[in-house]
This record gives sequence, C-alpha cells and structure tokens, in this order.
Amino acid sequence: MKTTIMALRILPPAALAAVLLTPAGAAAAGDGVVTDTLGGEHSYADVLWTCLAAFLVFFMQPGFAMVESGFTRAKNAVNILMKNLMDFSVGTIAFFVLGFGLMFGRSNGVFGTTLFALSGLGDSTWEYSFLIFQTVFAATAATIVSGAMAERTKFTAYLAYSFVITLFIYPVFGSWAWGGLLQGGGWLENMGFMDFAGSTVVHSVGGWLALAGAVVLGARIGKYSPDGRPRAIMGHNLPLAALGVFILWFGWFGFNAGSTTAVGPDIGYIAVTTNIAAAAGAVVAMFTAWAMFGKPDASMALNGALAGLVGITAGCDGVSPLGALFIGAVAGALVVLSVTAIDRVLKVDDPVGAVSVHGVCGAWGTLAVGLFNTEAGLFYGGGVAQLGVQALGVVVAFGWAFGLGLVLFFALSKTIGLRVSREEEFRGLDIGEHGMEAYSGFQVFTTQ
Amino acid sequence: MKTTIMALRILPPAALAAVLLTPAGAAAAGDGVVTDTLGGEHSYADVLWTCLAAFLVFFMQPGFAMVESGFTRAKNAVNILMKNLMDFSVGTIAFFVLGFGLMFGRSNGVFGTTLFALSGLGDSTWEYSFLIFQTVFAATAATIVSGAMAERTKFTAYLAYSFVITLFIYPVFGSWAWGGLLQGGGWLENMGFMDFAGSTVVHSVGGWLALAGAVVLGARIGKYSPDGRPRAIMGHNLPLAALGVFILWFGWFGFNAGSTTAVGPDIGYIAVTTNIAAAAGAVVAMFTAWAMFGKPDASMALNGALAGLVGITAGCDGVSPLGALFIGAVAGALVVLSVTAIDRVLKVDDPVGAVSVHGVCGAWGTLAVGLFNTEAGLFYGGGVAQLGVQALGVVVAFGWAFGLGLVLFFALSKTIGLRVSREEEFRGLDIGEHGMEAYSGFQVFTTQ
Amino acid sequence: MKTTIMALRILPPAALAAVLLTPAGAAAAGDGVVTDTLGGEHSYADVLWTCLAAFLVFFMQPGFAMVESGFTRAKNAVNILMKNLMDFSVGTIAFFVLGFGLMFGRSNGVFGTTLFALSGLGDSTWEYSFLIFQTVFAATAATIVSGAMAERTKFTAYLAYSFVITLFIYPVFGSWAWGGLLQGGGWLENMGFMDFAGSTVVHSVGGWLALAGAVVLGARIGKYSPDGRPRAIMGHNLPLAALGVFILWFGWFGFNAGSTTAVGPDIGYIAVTTNIAAAAGAVVAMFTAWAMFGKPDASMALNGALAGLVGITAGCDGVSPLGALFIGAVAGALVVLSVTAIDRVLKVDDPVGAVSVHGVCGAWGTLAVGLFNTEAGLFYGGGVAQLGVQALGVVVAFGWAFGLGLVLFFALSKTIGLRVSREEEFRGLDIGEHGMEAYSGFQVFTTQ
Repeated sequence: MKTTIMALRILPPAALAAVLLTPAGAAAAGDGVVTDTLGGEHSYADVLWTCLAAFLVFFMQPGFAMVESGFTRAKNAVNILMKNLMDFSVGTIAFFVLGFGLMFGRSNGVFGTTLFALSGLGDSTWEYSFLIFQTVFAATAATIVSGAMAERTKFTAYLAYSFVITLFIYPVFGSWAWGGLLQGGGWLENMGFMDFAGSTVVHSVGGWLALAGAVVLGARIGKYSPDGRPRAIMGHNLPLAALGVFILWFGWFGFNAGSTTAVGPDIGYIAVTTNIAAAAGAVVAMFTAWAMFGKPDASMALNGALAGLVGITAGCDGVSPLGALFIGAVAGALVVLSVTAIDRVLKVDDPVGAVSVHGVCGAWGTLAVGLFNTEAGLFYGGGVAQLGVQALGVVVAFGWAFGLGLVLFFALSKTIGLRVSREEEFRGLDIGEHGMEAYSGFQVFTTQ
Repeated sequence: MKTTIMALRILPPAALAAVLLTPAGAAAAGDGVVTDTLGGEHSYADVLWTCLAAFLVFFMQPGFAMVESGFTRAKNAVNILMKNLMDFSVGTIAFFVLGFGLMFGRSNGVFGTTLFALSGLGDSTWEYSFLIFQTVFAATAATIVSGAMAERTKFTAYLAYSFVITLFIYPVFGSWAWGGLLQGGGWLENMGFMDFAGSTVVHSVGGWLALAGAVVLGARIGKYSPDGRPRAIMGHNLPLAALGVFILWFGWFGFNAGSTTAVGPDIGYIAVTTNIAAAAGAVVAMFTAWAMFGKPDASMALNGALAGLVGITAGCDGVSPLGALFIGAVAGALVVLSVTAIDRVLKVDDPVGAVSVHGVCGAWGTLAVGLFNTEAGLFYGGGVAQLGVQALGVVVAFGWAFGLGLVLFFALSKTIGLRVSREEEFRGLDIGEHGMEAYSGFQVFTTQ
Repeated sequence: MKTTIMALRILPPAALAAVLLTPAGAAAAGDGVVTDTLGGEHSYADVLWTCLAAFLVFFMQPGFAMVESGFTRAKNAVNILMKNLMDFSVGTIAFFVLGFGLMFGRSNGVFGTTLFALSGLGDSTWEYSFLIFQTVFAATAATIVSGAMAERTKFTAYLAYSFVITLFIYPVFGSWAWGGLLQGGGWLENMGFMDFAGSTVVHSVGGWLALAGAVVLGARIGKYSPDGRPRAIMGHNLPLAALGVFILWFGWFGFNAGSTTAVGPDIGYIAVTTNIAAAAGAVVAMFTAWAMFGKPDASMALNGALAGLVGITAGCDGVSPLGALFIGAVAGALVVLSVTAIDRVLKVDDPVGAVSVHGVCGAWGTLAVGLFNTEAGLFYGGGVAQLGVQALGVVVAFGWAFGLGLVLFFALSKTIGLRVSREEEFRGLDIGEHGMEAYSGFQVFTTQ
C-alpha cells in the first residue's frame, strides 16, 4: 500500500484522476455504490452490514425455536420446531411474493402496490439486500405467535396463520410505520411515530396476534383446575431455552443495530444501549421474581433479558445508555408482573410468556421513546405530543393485530379447525401431528 | 467529517492529491488494499467480508455435528461429535500443509504445486484470508461423510479418511473447477463449468464419498430384516437436529454469498436466492412426505431445507429469485424420493440422508445452472452446450469421489479395519471407542 | 458503477475534486470516520468490524454456558446457566459504570479515572464501539470462574463475585497491560509486555480467580474418597458441551481478530493462526489422552481445542502459522497434564478444567510470545528480555488475580457464605437455589 501511494505522489493531478477513477481501483477500494428504485445510493459497506445484520436476525429463528421447545413439554417438541421451521419457510415465500410490496412498494395511501416478487428490478439494486433484511423481520413477527399457541394448535391451522400474517397482517401495519423507507412515508410515520427497530411494528404486532390466538384456543388441558386456579406446567429442557435466549440476544444486535441499514457510529451506539437494556431486564426480572416467589427463577430471568431487548428496540438509537438501563429495568419488572397477571387474572394460557415479552414490553418500549428520546422525549424537554403519537401507534397496533387475529383464528377454528383433539393433546402433538417423537431412547414421561 | 470536507473544498488540486493520498487518510478511511500472489488487489472490505463469511462457514461444523448426532442414537453421540471435531481439526492441518497448494497453487496442468504451508508469502497478503475461507470449505466436504457412516465406523479409520480427503481428494477436484482463482484456471473451469459456491465441488464430492463409505461399510445391525425390508432407526434428539439445520442455514449465507470473496450488491442478491431455495425445499419436502407417508415428517422437512440449500449453491449468483424457488422446490421433492429409494431400493444405510442431501441435490443444483442461469441457461436462451458441461462436471465428480472413495474405504477395511465389532455396535461406540457416555444421569436405552 | 466512472473520466481535476468530496458521495461510499476522545480517527469499516467482533465474542457466553452445564450434572444445570446469564448481565452494568473507566480512562498512574458511564462523550464517538467490545471481553474473564466453582457455590455469593471482578479486579489489571489504547499506556505495556488479545489479561486472570474460588470452596462431596483418591464425576450432556466448544471456537475469531479493532489484512492472518492453533490443540490433546488413558477421550479433545485457542490468543498477530501450530500443540498436551495434575496431585476440584484451560494455557501462550513472535521472540533472533517481560506479566497476573481472589472468596465465605448446604448439594442446586429442574418429564437421577 505504501509503495503505491509513494508512486502516486509524483503524478500530476490529471494523471492522478485517471488512476483514482479506474474501475479496478474503485473495485479494489471496496467503495462502490448500489442504487435503489428511488435513486438513493447505498455503499458496498452498507450492503455488507445490512446483509450481515439480516443473517444475525435470521439466526433468531433457532433462538425462538429453542426457547419455545425448551419451555414446553417433551411430547410437543417436534411440533413446535416444525412450526418454527415452517413459519419462516412459508413466510419467506409469502413476503417475497406479496408482503414486501405491500410494505415498501409505492403506496396507494393505505399500502404499497409495487415491488411484488421484486418485479422490474435489475440484479444489482439495493432492494435485494433490503428484502433479505425485511424478510427476517417479518418472520420474527410471525414466529412469536407459535409460543403462545404451543401444545394444542393444529399444524394445518398454524400453516394457514403463518401465510396470512406474513402476506398481509404484518406488511400492511408495517407500511404505516416504516413504508417511507422506499415509498415516501406511511401515515403513522408521517405523524411522527418513532419505532426505530420495531418494538411495536414487529414485537407488539406478534405479541397481540399471539394473545388473540391464545384467547381463541383456550388453555391447555390441566392448566387451570376446575375452580380456576392456574397450575405450573414445567418446560422440559431449560438448557435449550437458555441457549435460545442467548441466541436471541446475539441476533438482536443485528435486529437493532442493523436497522440503520448503513454503516456508521450508530452501530456501536445501538449495540451499547441494546446490551445494557437486556442486562438490566435480566437482573431486574430476577430480583422481582425473587421478591415475589422467594427464589431467583431462571425462566423469569431469561424472559427478563428478552423483555429488556424488546423494550429497547424502539428507542435504541435515540436514548442515552442510562435511559436504556431504565427502559430495560422497567421491562424486566413488567414482564414478571404481566406473566403473573395474564396467568392468574386474565387466565389466558401463554406457555412461554410471549404476550408479556413481546406485546406488553413492546408497548412499553414504544411509549418509552416519548419519555426518554434525547431529542423528543418528555424527560428531555420534548412535548407531550410525541408521547401521544407513540400511544396512538401502540393502540393502532393493538387494534389491528388483536382484532384481525381474533377474526383469523376464529375463522380457522370454524373451518379447518384450530385445536387438536383431547386425545392428541394428552398423548402429545409430536405423535399426533408428525408421527414421531423428539427423544428416542430416553425414558420420557409423555403424560407430564 | 463534514468539516474536513468543507476545508478540502478550497484546496487546489495538487494539495488535494496530497491530502487524499496520505497513508493516514487511507487507513482512516478503511479503504486500503492487499495484494495476492498474482498481483491482484483486494480491498480491506473484501478481507473483512471473506473472513466473516469464513467464520459463518466454520459455524456450519456444529451444524453438521448437531444434525448428525440428533438424527442418530444416543449411544453413538459422543463418537459422532468426536468425528466432527476431528475431521475439522485434522483437515485444517492437512489443508494448510498440502491441500491449499494442490488446489490453488500454480498448476502443473493437473493440480497446483506452490503455496504449500503458505510458503513464500508475506504477512499481509490476501492468501491468508483466502486460506481460512477455503479451509472451512474443505472441512465442509469432509464432514458430510461422517453422517452416512455413522454408528458403525471405527474411529481410527475415520481419522485416516479425514486426512486423505482434505489432503488430496477434495483439493485435486477443486483445482479442476476452481483453481483459476489463483493459478489461471482448471480444466473443468476452462471448459465453462459453472459451480459458483460448490454444489458439486463441495457437496457432491462429499456426498459421493459418503456413498462409497456407506456401501463399503454395509448397513447397521438391525437396519434390514432378513428378508431385506428396511427398519426405521429413530434419531435420539430432534431438537438438536433442528438446531443443527438452522445453524447450517445461517452458515450457508456465508457459504454462498461469501463465495464472492468481495463486497458488492451480489451479497444481497445471493442471500435472497439462497434463502428462497431453502424455504421452498423445506415446504416441498414436507408436502411430499405428507403425501407419501400421511404425516408432515419433521426429518424430511429439515432435510428439505438442506436440500434446497445444496441445490441453490451452484447457481445462487446467476439464477433469478423465481428460478431459485423452483430449484429449491425440486430439491425438496428430490431429497424425499432419494432418501426413500436409497433406503428401500438400493438398500444402502445412510443414517442421516447425507448422500441424498449432498450428493443427489448437489448434482441437481449443478445441472440446474444449465437450465436456469439467466445468461447461459437453456430456459433463458442459452445453448445445450452449457447443460452438457454441467453434466460433465457432475459425472467427473461422481467418478472421482465415488471411485477414490471405494478404493480408500476398501483399503482401510483391509488394513486398520473400517467397522467396529458386533458387540461394540450393540453397546454403542461411545463406550467402545471413547470410554464415556453422551448422557450421564439420564435413563437412556442404549440398546435402542 | 461503471457508468459513473466513465462520466467522471472527462471531468477536469477541479470538477473532479468537487465530485469526489461531496458529503453525499462520501456517505454513499461508506468511508466516514469517527473520532475518539484522544482525537484518533477510526473508519466506519473499523466501527463495523469492531462491533461485529464484539457480537461474536458476546456469543461466547452461551458457549461457556453450554460447556459448563454439559460437563456438570443435570441437577445443577439451571444453576450454572443462571450464573452465566447473571455474570454477563451484572458485569455489563458494572463495567459500564466503573470498569471501563478504570481500564481505559485517563490514568493516575495506577488506573483510569475518566470515562465512567461514558460521561462527557458525544453520541458519535468511537468509544461506544470500543465499550461494547471491551464489555464482552470483561464478561469473558468473569464467566470462566463459574465452571471451576460449579455444583457447590451459593448463587448470592456468585452474584457478588461477578460484580467485583468486572467492576475492579479485571479492569485494573487490564489497565496495566492494555490501558494505552486510550490513555497512553499502562506500566506493563510500557515495559514491552505483549498480549495481543488476552491470553493473560482475560484468560489467565479468569483462570487464577477460578483457582482461588475452587481452593476456598473445597471439593464437591464425593469427588475424593476418604483416602484422597479422585473419582470422575461425569458431565450430564456431552452434545451440549461439544456445541459449546464449537460456539467458543466460532466466537474466538471475533476475540482474536477483533482485537485489531481495525480492518486490514491482519484479520485474515489472525484467523489462520487462531484456527491452526485450535486444531492442533484438539488433535494433540486427543492423542495425549489416548496415550495416557487408552482411549481418545472426548472431554480432553474438546478442552484441547479450547487450550489451543487460549494459547494462541496472546500471539495470534505476531507468530507464523507454524508457530501457531506448535503453540496450539503444546497447549493441547499441557491441558491434559494440567487437568490430571490438578485433579490428582493438587487435589483441587475443578469440574470443567477451567484453571488448566484458561490459567495454565493462558500463561503458556503469553510466554510463547517471547519465543515465537517473529520480531521479538527468542527463536527469531529476539533477546531474552522479551521473554522476561512476558514472564513478569504472567507472574503479576497470577499474584493479582489469585491473591485478590483468595481475599474475595474468603471474605464472601465469612459473610454471606460461599457454599451451599450439604443437603442442597446432594439434591442439586437447581431445586435448592432456583426451585426448578433443568429437565422435566425425563427420568433423571439427581443423586448421580
């Protein structure tokens, strides 16, 4: 390198220009640009980062799969793994064909109407990198639901649900909050709604759909005694669940920092806020559970880390590290209270706590932007209007996702059926739905 | 940044040249270049991407380890994990010492003859980044074989096999198809053979070696009844296997997109085709198995995802997303049919389906380039000649890998022995070969 | 891209300068810079790489968690997972608030005194990226200890320990060896001590603290017979442990190559030396155990890979690939001998071999720099002085970490208590400390 530079020093400016601008030199420097359909430019480094972040977010899929199978019973493990594999696979295709266009195509005022199956694009456009990143985001919203509906949902109904959420429910809401990335803005975004990486767009939408599913399904057999008292149904493999949480935490760096879709110092900043919020969530959830139940419960601590991550997702780019610490800490307490309340007061059976982690803490994180954002938050001199817009987004997300979820799951229950038979639920969905067992050669109690 | 730029605007061109070309500025901008032995230039960003992709491909090793141990019995789990650890470790050393030079050194017309142990290179040359990427590729080919030979192969024989494939069998074939990256082209490459990321070079070579191994070994005790009917021997831990498949999918983004070894829009493009093919493979394999066996079998769906990935590997850079969807879908159906045929018709015992996933679907993916490549494929106006060259490559790979595999495994069986004793196979290779069990403190049925 | 370049070719130099220097162009090219508190410049690519490397090192946390839970008994699995989760979470907060400033702030001669909670920094400074990278390093040192103290340590005591090491013990030693990155140099560094990625700073410090903990705690019940002979207590889940080792190997690429905190050819060079050392460690440990105990023990081979990785960490940037092979090979033999000696001669109960892997092999790797560094090593024409400085660093690390560790653990044992009751140890810490079991629905022998 040094030799080249020394040689160049003696060139006159015109020759220098020629050297600097040879295609070989440009390629060698790795500083090319790709354009998007709106004419915007993105550096090769942005392509690299956005794709790497997409790979990290893809890896959240086994994170969810391990958390959900670990926190449920051995007799249903194959089923939940298949649901995770299939919501991603079906979702990939549905989002490619229709969802991406609905979310990011040129808008008709309500949703996008171009870019279906990336039609009309050249091979080297930015949209490919953007599609892979957005695909794994859509799949994250979809896969949240499987946990809340675990251990009793028919596989065919779950396939149908996966298709509809990625094809339609997620992308349309997404276009309202994020569509502007390619089409000039959705209506929520244009009102000033701030949700940097998707506390609401991804997590709450998934969480409220999960709530609708769990409500329509009803509780697992044996979850509530005849007089309505909840019974703890233990997960079968805590090491798997813990591995899943660590994988999710790892992937979340891609989820939050990757939402820049561009290289720059924000990557480091967001990594710091994301990590601090997760840590605070884990610690506070542990102490909250300790205070409430007398022991530092591992499930709650693990869910606390996820709660902190969901909570910081909306504001990771715009709150201070101390703000992140506070947001994560509140999420950690909130998730323990919410899991307990949903279980004991609402009597909705959510086997892995998905509604609390993603729905409730997603709402909290979105509101927290209105409080802690260093430019627009109430505690930093911003007005109450921002908090109002944040609340509006939270309410709209709940109405859209929970409302459509009720309709969808009710329709499924009246057509192909939403819930397996009582006999199948007793024996386990692995045998009933898939004709196989998760663990062969072990002594496993399937009636647990 | 803005301030610096404003200041520079007022400089005359000569001063500007000096500023632009100071080594400090170059380093600060992260746009340095490294050269390779042929004088080619690679940007720092290319180094970064190639190494990151190598790390992702390295991570496929635990993917294989989890798939193979999950799909086999508990009593042989330690053994298969050790084989995975050791084929990578032995392979790393063998490829460094000899394989890399055979594959990418200056060619004598048949194989390379320089770069052994990276001799003669300066510390800052491109070849280090290229070596780590190619090392993890070589190890992928090697580790495919352990699955097909699981539960009955002597550990010492497997060590010997690992050494030979990475030292010689893989690199020599690789030099024919890919050698041109550093030495000016292998003969298959010079005929126009297209295999972007290794459907044939890596996966089929591994798959046909696996077939040779399974043939020479014979079936596991109890796999076929006296009248020749196959019996299903269930894997012991499906969550591990599912985790492995997700890890492989994750690593495959590095495998395929990393084969650019350069940053640019291709990364996003390849990520999209790779992901769509994997998704289509999983979905179609599931429906195929559902139609054939009456249930959506999880093993088949998981292998379907891998089949789609193997299938798209050759053409990931040059087929359209819809082409990728089709290639993956065919691979998904093919893997179910192939696993069934190998099990029932050929009566070759391949415990994890490695021959079907890597050998058969690798061949399909290589041929598919001749059909779907948007510049040279038959369906896109290309001639039949490209398809012919693709078929030639497929046949040569089969002849080379299966042929040498038969020789190697036969030689091993006649010298140090290839198969464990009947007693050891009953009790499990974990105790027999390693003196330990995979699961201690669990009730495990080792005779399963 | 080509079109743009062709158009630029016809511009006169002055116009060219304007084009090249527009902020839009600069941003699009992804080549911005961020500054640090000392005025140093770091490219966007450096930010990207440093953060990605940090994410990889973060992922070592589940690596440790899987290794430690896999190598211990099922009845204590929840407890060890919680310790891993909590040492990272508590450590993140402690390092943010105080540790980072002690290690990298402006020094008072003994430790840093600025940068606490990143106070006084703008949002776009380099320190955010550097903090996330250093946080995951600090957490690595902390989490090493949990393995050696497994299966008998009170959870509250472990929380207290985690806080103190990340807040104070690790950062102060770190400032002596690495503080110069931001503050102008620590005293060991200024003497010429070389530890590129932390064989001593991270691994030995963690290893000697682990030794102190294991000594103060005493052995697990049943580990030694009344006449002092050691009994092997088998780990409960070898697939988990193997997965953990592969995850650690994967993350180690970020650990070692990421310690450049800058893009460039060193990334590829370090990836090569790191990988070769790990491979050599695994192979030699396997053969050493085979020779000593008659079988290729899987636990030893897995620990051998880790030993090679710890060994190469100090010198990964400055030894040749053959030097790395030798360093890893020696580490592989050393870890088997050390594990055996600590178990049988010193009679210290280290359930996972953490002291040998991290403490002993970390010391070896640090000394090996004085032998094999291609510029300063004894075998490459360097003087004995470098070896002396390396030895000094090793001794100081031992004195600081083991000494303070003894004080800390003794103080904890005399206050909140360090060890669980005999009854709890029999039944398992999962029930005793956390009120739950790792595996529900399986037949597990908790008294094993």
